Amino acid sequence: MKTEQEASDRTARCFNRLQAVLRRDGSIPEIGLPVQAIGGFLARLASLDSNNRFDTICVGAGEREGRILSPLVQQLHYGLAHGIGRSGNLTERQPKAIGSSILSEIANKLALDAIRCLGIPSTKAAMVVPVATGMALSLCLSAWRHTKRRAKFVVFLRIDQKSCFKSIFTAGFEPIIIDGIQETVISDGLITDLTALKIVLEKQKDEIIAVLSTTSCFAPRQPDNLIAIGELCTKYGVKHLVNNAYGLQSPECRNRIEEAGSVGYIDAFIQSTDKNFLVPVGGSIVATFDKKSLDMIANFYPGRASIVPSRDLLITLLQLGKTGLKELYNTQQTNFQVLHATMQEYAETIGQKVMEVKMNRISLAVTLKGWTSQQQNAFGAQLFSRGVTGARTIPNGLLRTIDGYEFLNFGSHSSRQHDGYLNVACAIGMTTQEIEELVKVLKEETPKWAFSSSINAKGIYP
Amino acid sequence: MKTEQEASDRTARCFNRLQAVLRRDGSIPEIGLPVQAIGGFLARLASLDSNNRFDTICVGAGEREGRILSPLVQQLHYGLAHGIGRSGNLTERQPKAIGSSILSEIANKLALDAIRCLGIPSTKAAMVVPVATGMALSLCLSAWRHTKRRAKFVVFLRIDQKSCFKSIFTAGFEPIIIDGIQETVISDGLITDLTALKIVLEKQKDEIIAVLSTTSCFAPRQPDNLIAIGELCTKYGVKHLVNNAYGLQSPECRNRIEEAGSVGYIDAFIQSTDKNFLVPVGGSIVATFDKKSLDMIANFYPGRASIVPSRDLLITLLQLGKTGLKELYNTQQTNFQVLHATMQEYAETIGQKVMEVKMNRISLAVTLKGWTSQQQNAFGAQLFSRGVTGARTIPNGLLRTIDGYEFLNFGSHSSRQHDGYLNVACAIGMTTQEIEELVKVLKEETPKWAFSSSINAKGIYP
Amino acid sequence: MKTEQEASDRTARCFNRLQAVLRRDGSIPEIGLPVQAIGGFLARLASLDSNNRFDTICVGAGEREGRILSPLVQQLHYGLAHGIGRSGNLTERQPKAIGSSILSEIANKLALDAIRCLGIPSTKAAMVVPVATGMALSLCLSAWRHTKRRAKFVVFLRIDQKSCFKSIFTAGFEPIIIDGIQETVISDGLITDLTALKIVLEKQKDEIIAVLSTTSCFAPRQPDNLIAIGELCTKYGVKHLVNNAYGLQSPECRNRIEEAGSVGYIDAFIQSTDKNFLVPVGGSIVATFDKKSLDMIANFYPGRASIVPSRDLLITLLQLGKTGLKELYNTQQTNFQVLHATMQEYAETIGQKVMEVKMNRISLAVTLKGWTSQQQNAFGAQLFSRGVTGARTIPNGLLRTIDGYEFLNFGSHSSRQHDGYLNVACAIGMTTQEIEELVKVLKEETPKWAFSSSINAKGIYP
Amino acid sequence: MKTEQEASDRTARCFNRLQAVLRRDGSIPEIGLPVQAIGGFLARLASLDSNNRFDTICVGAGEREGRILSPLVQQLHYGLAHGIGRSGNLTERQPKAIGSSILSEIANKLALDAIRCLGIPSTKAAMVVPVATGMALSLCLSAWRHTKRRAKFVVFLRIDQKSCFKSIFTAGFEPIIIDGIQETVISDGLITDLTALKIVLEKQKDEIIAVLSTTSCFAPRQPDNLIAIGELCTKYGVKHLVNNAYGLQSPECRNRIEEAGSVGYIDAFIQSTDKNFLVPVGGSIVATFDKKSLDMIANFYPGRASIVPSRDLLITLLQLGKTGLKELYNTQQTNFQVLHATMQEYAETIGQKVMEVKMNRISLAVTLKGWTSQQQNAFGAQLFSRGVTGARTIPNGLLRTIDGYEFLNFGSHSSRQHDGYLNVACAIGMTTQEIEELVKVLKEETPKWAFSSSINAKGIYP
Repeated sequence: MKTEQEASDRTARCFNRLQAVLRRDGSIPEIGLPVQAIGGFLARLASLDSNNRFDTICVGAGEREGRILSPLVQQLHYGLAHGIGRSGNLTERQPKAIGSSILSEIANKLALDAIRCLGIPSTKAAMVVPVATGMALSLCLSAWRHTKRRAKFVVFLRIDQKSCFKSIFTAGFEPIIIDGIQETVISDGLITDLTALKIVLEKQKDEIIAVLSTTSCFAPRQPDNLIAIGELCTKYGVKHLVNNAYGLQSPECRNRIEEAGSVGYIDAFIQSTDKNFLVPVGGSIVATFDKKSLDMIANFYPGRASIVPSRDLLITLLQLGKTGLKELYNTQQTNFQVLHATMQEYAETIGQKVMEVKMNRISLAVTLKGWTSQQQNAFGAQLFSRGVTGARTIPNGLLRTIDGYEFLNFGSHSSRQHDGYLNVACAIGMTTQEIEELVKVLKEETPKWAFSSSINAKGIYP
Repeated sequence: MKTEQEASDRTARCFNRLQAVLRRDGSIPEIGLPVQAIGGFLARLASLDSNNRFDTICVGAGEREGRILSPLVQQLHYGLAHGIGRSGNLTERQPKAIGSSILSEIANKLALDAIRCLGIPSTKAAMVVPVATGMALSLCLSAWRHTKRRAKFVVFLRIDQKSCFKSIFTAGFEPIIIDGIQETVISDGLITDLTALKIVLEKQKDEIIAVLSTTSCFAPRQPDNLIAIGELCTKYGVKHLVNNAYGLQSPECRNRIEEAGSVGYIDAFIQSTDKNFLVPVGGSIVATFDKKSLDMIANFYPGRASIVPSRDLLITLLQLGKTGLKELYNTQQTNFQVLHATMQEYAETIGQKVMEVKMNRISLAVTLKGWTSQQQNAFGAQLFSRGVTGARTIPNGLLRTIDGYEFLNFGSHSSRQHDGYLNVACAIGMTTQEIEELVKVLKEETPKWAFSSSINAKGIYP
Repeated sequence: MKTEQEASDRTARCFNRLQAVLRRDGSIPEIGLPVQAIGGFLARLASLDSNNRFDTICVGAGEREGRILSPLVQQLHYGLAHGIGRSGNLTERQPKAIGSSILSEIANKLALDAIRCLGIPSTKAAMVVPVATGMALSLCLSAWRHTKRRAKFVVFLRIDQKSCFKSIFTAGFEPIIIDGIQETVISDGLITDLTALKIVLEKQKDEIIAVLSTTSCFAPRQPDNLIAIGELCTKYGVKHLVNNAYGLQSPECRNRIEEAGSVGYIDAFIQSTDKNFLVPVGGSIVATFDKKSLDMIANFYPGRASIVPSRDLLITLLQLGKTGLKELYNTQQTNFQVLHATMQEYAETIGQKVMEVKMNRISLAVTLKGWTSQQQNAFGAQLFSRGVTGARTIPNGLLRTIDGYEFLNFGSHSSRQHDGYLNVACAIGMTTQEIEELVKVLKEETPKWAFSSSINAKGIYP
Repeated sequence: MKTEQEASDRTARCFNRLQAVLRRDGSIPEIGLPVQAIGGFLARLASLDSNNRFDTICVGAGEREGRILSPLVQQLHYGLAHGIGRSGNLTERQPKAIGSSILSEIANKLALDAIRCLGIPSTKAAMVVPVATGMALSLCLSAWRHTKRRAKFVVFLRIDQKSCFKSIFTAGFEPIIIDGIQETVISDGLITDLTALKIVLEKQKDEIIAVLSTTSCFAPRQPDNLIAIGELCTKYGVKHLVNNAYGLQSPECRNRIEEAGSVGYIDAFIQSTDKNFLVPVGGSIVATFDKKSLDMIANFYPGRASIVPSRDLLITLLQLGKTGLKELYNTQQTNFQVLHATMQEYAETIGQKVMEVKMNRISLAVTLKGWTSQQQNAFGAQLFSRGVTGARTIPNGLLRTIDGYEFLNFGSHSSRQHDGYLNVACAIGMTTQEIEELVKVLKEETPKWAFSSSINAKGIYP
């Protein structure tokens, strides 16, 4: 009996200590916790919310009392019903929902710790917001409106991804689009057109609320030159918002953010929780280099919101531990090299090449020179039907209109002409088996005639 | 063996039919389904998404492939990882995530069916959005911006609830606040100040994007006069947005929406999924009286979003069935009467009264005439410490500034003087046991001196 | 922050207190706990087991270390991997698995409390065994072997249910079968043939280890006369084992056990956890009227065993609370009356009657006089194909051999001739909707000609 | 829409095919399935049971209708409520529970496939029984009783593990104990005393139902000589039952079973599901070399039983796939070598040695020569308190009485004198981290003086 009491007390202390340490230090444990312990910790937090109390008869005499009708829904939420935030602020505590409030607070701290220990140590504040990247970008832009009442525009450093473009409209602004330019004659990479940016800022600075730059992107686009952009922003009194969608997993993206952020050149950077931490779609992390900047955004959110993204991130980080998190990220780097080498080899067999895009270590582009657009499209469709998702062919010449704005050569992040190419990425979580299978399917689905072209390397294709 | 094959086939057909019927008819089954069947249905839908396929080796070669790292997170999401919507539109299908797309589509149809069968049959379209009411209001306002480029204002028919007020700023507009007015000398209810509204609209119609009215609210405020407001909006070319937060459960609120909506006087009305369907915080339903109006909003959302609110609503409606849903709502009506009678009796014992607010059948207000603000506040705090959540005392004289706007007598939805009162609500899910316990706690926590005042009914208090 | 610490401490204390109170008092809480709290309690107990510790690096250097490979299995067991008992004894503590040991201990205490408060207050000890009723009966018989080394037989008071009959062989004994006899000329009920029992005991008492009697059974069999049987057993030095399979829900069965047990006439009585507490098949409760008797059986079980039945019972009892448990049982009584009345009415419309079996308040028998065996069988099959499970027709004349023993008129618990009948039961959990549907289906499936016979009530059938 | 229908049909076909293939071929898939698919498959099977049907109103008019009261219990069982088997037979189909019946059937087939492909290919039949090893041994012995009515004894080839010894009593037999003997002068291993066995069988063959031999055991005991034992059993007409508790993971144990079984020298062999497949305690697998032998045992079980062990095994095998299963087992072999080498090194530092027990590749024994019993006991206790479970010290001289039988030097599987030793095992699932930590703790907890003894290797200890 004595031993049992000791074990019982020890366990109670463990959970107490875990909660206290997580709140105080806000750091991810070195070694991940067993799933059972994480579940126990969630159950414990849920018990702090008024709808789960069992020590007294609770009376819910308001209009929102955290009642959950379906036991299946109850189970899928661990009984956490109150969401996060209060009417005025996403990080405010809910007196009715102390456990949910603590969970949200810890999730924010661990998100910050993750970002810092992955390679952006100057980050000062982070917040999990229960909307995906596009909406989070929008939220930041909106929150900044009162700082420059006359502002009507956001400078959009072109990336051909619809949701970040649309986030500008959602926030009530109009875009000024600046195309990417080719890095050098020998590199295929697209980089920020700083000259154009400078001209725009100089002319319209009083009407521009922010520049929206991007780090993670599909090759041949490269991460934007955050330092140079930020310098211009500071000079012209314009905010700098960085779309770091899945860039946490890229050393290059992280370095650029750290470099620019540490000297005050970034006002906020946003990353997806699903793309960087392998949780379901629905959340993102807003991070800043001083606490006040984040408060301004948190304080702007109208009303409560789902706790699910905070919870999922918390579970995943506690399970991984710092060791596991680093391992996950290191594996991505190694696997990217494997993918790169394998694709290079494949490209050669069909007389093509992997584009030279040094600063992009997540995705790569294989040229499809000499293929017609139709052949390129058919190839892409065939890959999808074989169970390869995410790979896409980008033919030249596609014109797309979004909310009244035209994008020439949509998909290639630039209006310049190109020969069409195939994009594939190696994001975290991709396995070497997947890479092997990818190349196997690629080879099987590449039209026969394409291989013969490898013999003829003089640029003449069928 | 034959019987087994038959049973097996029958079950497969059952799920096929369930899926087909739900998509085709879009109607909630009369009788709820067993939880096990709902779980099976979710598992089946999840299997349609690429990340859950097991018939072939799938390769995820993109940046977002629905990988879930933690088995606990996996389980809490039934493996549904891709969210809903595509970069451009919240109701667009995801080729990678057919099951998620179908789930979202069905959830929207059942949401529509629920709203229609509960008493707003003229509703033509509904969409579950994975943000709570405040953010959903904001989304509608934003989506309408392009219809009147010069518009800067939203008319706010005052309700003292922060998130719907803040939603105006999030969308990039400024509020014009119109106070409620007392219904008649004999009624305590607050109603819409139509005269003031008319004056504002006449003067500023070209700068006003919308009027934001409210149905469900805390007594003594009553639902706004939607018909008269809508008539004015139509006349002056201004949108009419209705905040129906928890109003689905009120026949009065539903009737007003149906009456105004069926004649074209409402552009969209928003309701909370948690408050009306007892799921965790995080979602709301945007509903409209023609399909095009909804598409405009769906098409405006930037990027993907969480599937969780759609899933939770789907589970809950399938479990309840139409019969269960109606029963749930009917019970609320009955229980409100019980609450009203019980509170009346309580009020009399302390020489107070339940305010006369006929059109509000969810919450009620008990006067606390003769109590000091301090006494009122202390009483409210005491109730909370006894496990009564949601009940609140509203003392006179509170001045609150939100985003630069001043609200005199905050909490009472109007600047007029009052004597302070106690608000309690009977929302769906409240039980008669809770009502009994509420009154028990009220009586125990009411200061002794207050009871003596019941003898002296002439208005002289200690 | 202070409030949060308080809430946190309060909750920790809640769980501590819950665990302490459950162990000390061993009583089911009056009011059931919220599911969330039960889950939290299980998680807490699981954390006490060595395989779930997270405060230190644990090393499993034995052959059974509670490792669970599949996260799905992990989740379905709340991480409880060690089972209950040790090699020697089902109630012994496992030093590696303190949480599991406590869970098992509490489940046994609550099982005892449930039995006592439902109406057998003289019960002194109870144990959840992770085998169903048949195997549990066998276990008791085996455990008693050493008390009478020469014993070879168990007296089986015939009930036509295979598993309790087979339990005799599993324990290594042979049966002596005694048929039931008709109560009186006016009652249709079957009762214990005490005369035959006495003769058998007198003659073979030294070779008989126990009499196996039964309480819950299908009409027209009635509960055995436990007092008279027990008196004989005591007189002749033979154990008395009572098969109370689903008898906890019957006041008559409970009374008989209490009366006989309180005066020392019962050595053990066994009940199913699934039939009496609505959990999945797999467990039963062995109960005795003195602690030593139970220890003898617990001490006899060879090795560890599944914790699942203990866990399921614990969850169910904590969720129900005493109030809920009593309500569940009272509802069964009320519903049985409804079923009885409805079936009486149905029987009359087809010129039949509900047999007069006063002491059986769970199941009833409707005569099918004048129907051929084939007609009776076809009727039963038809009911099953319509989704009615559990209802069965018992035609006359069936001869069944089990393990070499012949049972004439199998299904009717007696060799005597009868006219065939239909059995239906109203067990706990059956709803009035089910009763209505049952009668509806019965009427639809009864052959047309059978109704006409109702006109002719003189006993002449087609 | 077409693509969706195709995807939907494809998925339905996938599950159909999975079910059909598993039943027809009964083989574990080469590559494991995603957890989501396994959950979907379980949900699908559950839907076939009457309590989960949703295509019609089902009426439960029996005494056991698979109703589950608690939603938490429902969830932890996937709605599978009916258990397996029918009153007469553990492998019989339940008409009410077709899904449960299919699940049980598939689990048995996969269990057989696992055993065969792991290295006992001559196995012809296997059955998951929902009781742990001890009870399963007992069940076999009981089932054989009718083959030799006069039999009273089971020959117990001594292994110092209580539950297998007790299983003899549970089945109603008495043990004849035969001690192990030392293999050779140079080997420390204990082997079967075939001479003694022959004498016993010759003398008492008509009273002996079976010889109970053991494969997996703690060093220095080695697996019994199954061929020689089986030859004697056949000669003397006695059954041969093999306790293969955790022996599936040992090539040596598997080989011996295969060799003896393939020539008809084994009547049944039993293995634990938890120890060999990393599921929670509660089940075992009975396997035989002809189908009829298994039927005899299945047919003997009295009544229904829990489906949980079958389900857990099914989940685990589907998740692992054959590839994963082999990998798991191979890792154990590699890790055992690591453990052996590490312990050898440790032993040398304290002047001891790892006993020479070639045929035992799961556990090993480190001598503690020169330590007093008290010192040995204290060492064992200290390890446990440091979180090392399963390691145990076996001092010389312990006398233990179980059910009246005396075991001299209990724990060492033999009466012969020894110097005391430390046992550690490397079972499947143990990681190299655990091995490292084990040795670290061992070194830290070994008394200081013991190290000095390493200098003095002449056998003189403090």
